[in-house]
Amino acid sequence: MEELFNNLWVLISGALVFTMTISVGLLEIGELGEDYKRSLMKAIMITCSAFFFMGLMGFNIAFAPTINGLIGNPLYNGPFLGGFSSDVYGIFKGVWWSMGPAYFNTGITLPTYFFFEAAFASVTLALVGVVVLRKVKLRAFFAYSIIYFIVLWGLPAAWIWNPTGWLYLMGVRDFAGGLVVHGAAGAAGLGIVLQIWLEEKKKGFKESPQVKINPNPGWLTLSIILLWLGWFGFNPGSTLALNLEAQIVVLTTFLAASASFLSTMFFRYLMVRENPGLIYAVNGILMGLIVITPLAGFVSPASAVVLGLVGGPLFLAAEKLFSRLKWFSDPIGLFPGHMLGGLFGLSMIAFFTQQPFAADAGSPNLPNGLLFGGGYPALQQLGLELLATGVVMTVVFVLSFTTMYIINLGLRGTTIDYEHEKPISLTNTRIR
Amino acid sequence: MEELFNNLWVLISGALVFTMTISVGLLEIGELGEDYKRSLMKAIMITCSAFFFMGLMGFNIAFAPTINGLIGNPLYNGPFLGGFSSDVYGIFKGVWWSMGPAYFNTGITLPTYFFFEAAFASVTLALVGVVVLRKVKLRAFFAYSIIYFIVLWGLPAAWIWNPTGWLYLMGVRDFAGGLVVHGAAGAAGLGIVLQIWLEEKKKGFKESPQVKINPNPGWLTLSIILLWLGWFGFNPGSTLALNLEAQIVVLTTFLAASASFLSTMFFRYLMVRENPGLIYAVNGILMGLIVITPLAGFVSPASAVVLGLVGGPLFLAAEKLFSRLKWFSDPIGLFPGHMLGGLFGLSMIAFFTQQPFAADAGSPNLPNGLLFGGGYPALQQLGLELLATGVVMTVVFVLSFTTMYIINLGLRGTTIDYEHEKPISLTNTRIR
Amino acid sequence: MEELFNNLWVLISGALVFTMTISVGLLEIGELGEDYKRSLMKAIMITCSAFFFMGLMGFNIAFAPTINGLIGNPLYNGPFLGGFSSDVYGIFKGVWWSMGPAYFNTGITLPTYFFFEAAFASVTLALVGVVVLRKVKLRAFFAYSIIYFIVLWGLPAAWIWNPTGWLYLMGVRDFAGGLVVHGAAGAAGLGIVLQIWLEEKKKGFKESPQVKINPNPGWLTLSIILLWLGWFGFNPGSTLALNLEAQIVVLTTFLAASASFLSTMFFRYLMVRENPGLIYAVNGILMGLIVITPLAGFVSPASAVVLGLVGGPLFLAAEKLFSRLKWFSDPIGLFPGHMLGGLFGLSMIAFFTQQPFAADAGSPNLPNGLLFGGGYPALQQLGLELLATGVVMTVVFVLSFTTMYIINLGLRGTTIDYEHEKPISLTNTRIR
Repeated sequence: MEELFNNLWVLISGALVFTMTISVGLLEIGELGEDYKRSLMKAIMITCSAFFFMGLMGFNIAFAPTINGLIGNPLYNGPFLGGFSSDVYGIFKGVWWSMGPAYFNTGITLPTYFFFEAAFASVTLALVGVVVLRKVKLRAFFAYSIIYFIVLWGLPAAWIWNPTGWLYLMGVRDFAGGLVVHGAAGAAGLGIVLQIWLEEKKKGFKESPQVKINPNPGWLTLSIILLWLGWFGFNPGSTLALNLEAQIVVLTTFLAASASFLSTMFFRYLMVRENPGLIYAVNGILMGLIVITPLAGFVSPASAVVLGLVGGPLFLAAEKLFSRLKWFSDPIGLFPGHMLGGLFGLSMIAFFTQQPFAADAGSPNLPNGLLFGGGYPALQQLGLELLATGVVMTVVFVLSFTTMYIINLGLRGTTIDYEHEKPISLTNTRIR
Repeated sequence: MEELFNNLWVLISGALVFTMTISVGLLEIGELGEDYKRSLMKAIMITCSAFFFMGLMGFNIAFAPTINGLIGNPLYNGPFLGGFSSDVYGIFKGVWWSMGPAYFNTGITLPTYFFFEAAFASVTLALVGVVVLRKVKLRAFFAYSIIYFIVLWGLPAAWIWNPTGWLYLMGVRDFAGGLVVHGAAGAAGLGIVLQIWLEEKKKGFKESPQVKINPNPGWLTLSIILLWLGWFGFNPGSTLALNLEAQIVVLTTFLAASASFLSTMFFRYLMVRENPGLIYAVNGILMGLIVITPLAGFVSPASAVVLGLVGGPLFLAAEKLFSRLKWFSDPIGLFPGHMLGGLFGLSMIAFFTQQPFAADAGSPNLPNGLLFGGGYPALQQLGLELLATGVVMTVVFVLSFTTMYIINLGLRGTTIDYEHEKPISLTNTRIR
Repeated sequence: MEELFNNLWVLISGALVFTMTISVGLLEIGELGEDYKRSLMKAIMITCSAFFFMGLMGFNIAFAPTINGLIGNPLYNGPFLGGFSSDVYGIFKGVWWSMGPAYFNTGITLPTYFFFEAAFASVTLALVGVVVLRKVKLRAFFAYSIIYFIVLWGLPAAWIWNPTGWLYLMGVRDFAGGLVVHGAAGAAGLGIVLQIWLEEKKKGFKESPQVKINPNPGWLTLSIILLWLGWFGFNPGSTLALNLEAQIVVLTTFLAASASFLSTMFFRYLMVRENPGLIYAVNGILMGLIVITPLAGFVSPASAVVLGLVGGPLFLAAEKLFSRLKWFSDPIGLFPGHMLGGLFGLSMIAFFTQQPFAADAGSPNLPNGLLFGGGYPALQQLGLELLATGVVMTVVFVLSFTTMYIINLGLRGTTIDYEHEKPISLTNTRIR
C-alpha cells in the first residue's frame, strides 16, 4: 500500500521531469529569439530518443545489477523492459530489484522507475544540447544522442545511484544529480565544444562564432515556470518515496530558488545599477535550483536559503569568467550555470548535511557536514565527492569528445552546420 | 482506502485531459499561424460547453445504467449530477454504480468519474473541430456542441464503455478510445465536412477552399508537449485504477510515441531527403499516441514499440492518400491521423493483446492476440472490433451530418462562415 | 496513512497554485500585448518574494498560534520554518499544530502547508499587482511585496483561516478565499491606486492615464487554461484533505466556470450583437472561478451552476460601473472581477450552503443557507460575513495605502514609474 504511494509520487514527478526537456527548448527560444525553431526540433528529438534508447538498453546499463560495480548488465530483462514478455512484471509485484527490501526498499516498480529516470536522462542531454545550437547538424546530434542514452548517461548513474556501483559503495552521494546530471552534462558539453573548436580552427576561425542573445519575454517566462515546476518533480521525486523528507525537499528546493533569485538580482543591480532584466531573473532562479539539487534532501530549510543566497554571486562571477573564453559559444550558460553550480552544490554536501534529513532521504550513512559538527568524516566525505567529480568529469568528457570525433569522421567532416550557421559571425546577419 | 487512491489517480488524469482541448487550439495556431484567434475561442467554448452539457445530461446518457444497452438513462440522478440534492453523494460513499463491486470495482466516485469523462468528451470535439476552421460560424458550431455533448458523444460510450452497453456485452473492448474517441471524432468530422461540401457546391466551388499551413514553432512545440502530457492522463488514467497496469500504460504510451516519432522522421526523410521539420515531428508523436490508445493497457512494452514504428509510415501513407481528396479541408489531419490511427489501433487489439496485461487493465476476458497464440478467439475479437467500427462510424456519421443539416436550416443557409472565410480561396489573401 | 494522502493532495494542489502567479503575468501580456515584459518580471519577482518572506516570518503570522486571535506568533519555530534545526520536523511526525487532532485533524505537515499557503499569498499579490502596471516602479513594488508577505497577507488569514483567529472563532467562514484572497486583494489594490492617484493629481493629471488593451490571443488562452488548472489546486486543495468533498469541489469549481462563461458570452452578445471575443471569454471563466471560490466546498453542483450563471451578468454590470471611474487604471479587472466577485461569493455562503457538503469540507457548524431552509442562523451567518468583509477590507486598505505612502516617501516621490509610463497618456504612443 505504501509502495503504491511511492510509485504515484515518482510517476507524477516523472511526468513533471518529462516536460523539462521541451522547456529547455522553450528557454532557448526565450533567450535567443523565436526564430530558433531548430531548438524546438532538437528538444522534441531528445525527448523521443531518450525514451526509445533508454528503453532499448540505456536503463539497464544505469540501473540493472552492475558487473563489478562498473556497468549495469545491459541484457537484464532484455530490451524494452521485458520486451514481449508478460511475465517479468509478475515477479516481486513488479518492484525493481534495487527498490526491494534488500536495497532502497521503496517499492518502485520497473515502469515507474524507468519513466522517471528516462525523463532525467532526457533533460540531461537537453542541458548538454544548448552548446550545439547553430554549430552541429541535427543528424549528427541525433547520432550522438543514441550513444549518449545507451552508454554515456548511464555510466555515472551506474556508479553513484546504483546501489552496487563502485562509487556508491565507497560512500559517494548525490541527491538528485549535481554530478550525475549537471556536472556530467557540463563534461559532455565540454567534449562537444572541443570537437567543434577543432573543426572551427581548421576552417580558419580565430574565435568561435557566438550565438546572439535576442530575448523573447513570453517564452522565457513560460520556460522558467515550467522548469521550476519540473524541478518539483526532479528534486522531491528523487527521494523515490512519498515521506516527510520528500515534502521537506519541496521546501528546500523552493527556498533556494527564491533566495538565489533575490541575491542574483541584488548583486547584478550593484554591478550595473539598473534593472538586471528577465534573463538574469531566470538565471537566478535556475542557479538556486541547480545548487540545491545535489543536497536538497540532506539539508535544513535555512541552509537551503544560505545556499541559494550564495548561488547568485557565484553565477555572476562564473558567467564573467567563462565569457572571457572565446573558443566556444555557450549562450544559455551550461558551464557557469549547470556545470559549476552542480559541482559546487555537490561539494557542499560535506558542509551542510544534517543526518536526520539525509537518513529520511535514504542516505542514513551520510555524515553531518563540517558546519554541523561533522569533523573528520565530513572531510572524508568531501574527499569522496571530489574524487567522484574528478572521475566522472574525466570519463564523460573523454567519451563525449570521442563520440563526436567519430561521428564527425563518419559524416566526413560535416559535423558543423555551416549551411545554417556560418553567416552568423561572418556577415552579422541573423538567420532564421 | 485503495478506492481513494484510484480516485486520486483519475482526478489527476482528468486534470491533464482537461488541458488537452485548449492544447488542440494551440496546435491549430501552431500549424496555421498565430492569427487564428478563432481557434482559441473555439477551444475555450468547447471546454465550457463540455462541462455544462455533459453535466446537464450527457454524462448520464453515456454512463448511467442503460435502457436495453442502447442509451444511458438521461434522468439518472437528475441534471447536474444530483442537482441540488445533498443526498446522492451519501449512497455507497459516492461510488458510481458501475465502479462498485458488481462491475468494475475501482471505487471511482461520481464527481471524479464525471470530471474525467467530461474532459474526454471535450477533447473529442476538439478533434472534430479542426475541420470547421474558417468554414463554420462559431454560433453554428456552438449549437452543434450542445447536441454533441448531450447525445452524440455519449452513444458510443454507452455501447462500449458502459458495462451494460450492447457492444460491451458482446465483448467489444476499446481501452482508451480508439473508436469511442478517435474513430468517432473522425465520423463526426466526416458528417460535418459533407454538409460543408454540399453548401460549397451550391455556391459554385469546384474544390473546397483549403486552409493554409503557416507554422509557428513556439506554439506548435508547446502544444505537443501539453498534448503528450495530457495523454499521460488519457491513457494511464483509463485503467480507472492506480495499479501496476496503470504504470505499464505509461510505458506503452511513451514508447509508442517515441518510436512513431523516429519512424515518421525516418520515412519522411527518405521521401524528401531533408529535415522533415516540426510539423512532421509533431504529427509523428501524435500518431504514436493515437495508435497505442485503444490497446495501451493490453500490450507489452515491446509491442508498443512495434505499433509506434508502424504508425509512422501509416500516417505518411494516409496523409498522401487523403490529400488527394479536394472536397474538404483537413489542415490538422483529423482523418489520416486520428480517425485512421484510432481505427487501426483498435483492430490491432486482435493481434497484440496479451492476457496478463488486459486482465490487470480490467478486461480479463479479452483473448490473446493472433501474434500471441490467440487463434480462433482472436479472430472472433477482430470481427467484433470491426463490427463495432462499422456500427459506430455509421451512426455517428449520420447523426453528425443530420445535426449540421438541421442547424444549417435553422440558421437559414448561413452555416458556412463566408464573411471570414471566402477570401481565402478566391483572392488568395490571408485573413486575420 | 490517510495523512500521507492528504499531504500528497495538498502538495499537488500547491504545485498548481504555484504556477498561477506567473499565469497572471501571462494573462497581462495576453490582454495588454506581448511588449509588457515588465509584467513578467513582476510575476517572477512576486513568486520569489512570496516564498522567501513568507518563509522568513509571514507564514507564522498567518498560521502559527495567534496572540489573542489577532496575529500569529511571528517567532513560532523561528524564521525559515525551523531554520537550521533538524528537530522540529520530528515532533508529531511533522504535522502542523492546527492540522493535528485538536483542530482540523488532516495531518498536513509544516512543509506542505507552507508550500500551499505561500503559493496562495503569491497569487494574491499577483492579483493586486495588475493595477501597478506602468504606474509603480519595480523596486517600489518589491519593497511593498516585503511588507505584504510578512504582514499584510497574513492578517486576514490569521483571523479567518487560523482556528484561533477572532473571526474564525466568531463563526466566519471563507472556503478558499473570497475575502482572504480576492476581497483583500481588491482592498490592497485600492490602497495602491489611491496613492498613485494622489501623486498623479500632484503632477497635474485630470484623469489617471489608462493602460491600453492590445490582446495577444495565444498568451491569453494559455493563461486562462493555466489559471483554470491552477484553480483545480486552489479550490479542491483548500479542503486540506483528500476526501469525497475535495472531489465535489472539483465539480462545483468546473461547473461554475463553464456556466459563467456561457452566461457572460450570452449577455455580452445581447449587448453588442457580435462575438464578444477572447477577453470576455477569459473574463467569463475567471468570474465563475472567483464567485465559487468562497463557497465551493459548501454547495451542491446545481447551486454552483446557478452561481456561475449569475456571475456573468454581475461581471458585465460591474465592469461598466467601474469603467466610469477615471481616477485609476485597472486594465485586467481587479475590482469588477476579483474584488466584487469574491465578496459576492462570500455573501452567497448565507444563501447556498448545504450542511452535508460544508461538514465534509471541515466546517460542520456552518448553517444551511437561506435558500435551503437556513432561516435565522443563515441570516446571522450573513451578518458575520458582512462584518468580516467590513473589517478586513478596511484594515487591508488602510495598511496598503500607508505602506505605499511610506515607500513613496522613502523613495522621495518617485513611486510612479514616469520614465516608463508617462508617454502613454500624453503622447498616445505605445512604449515597449
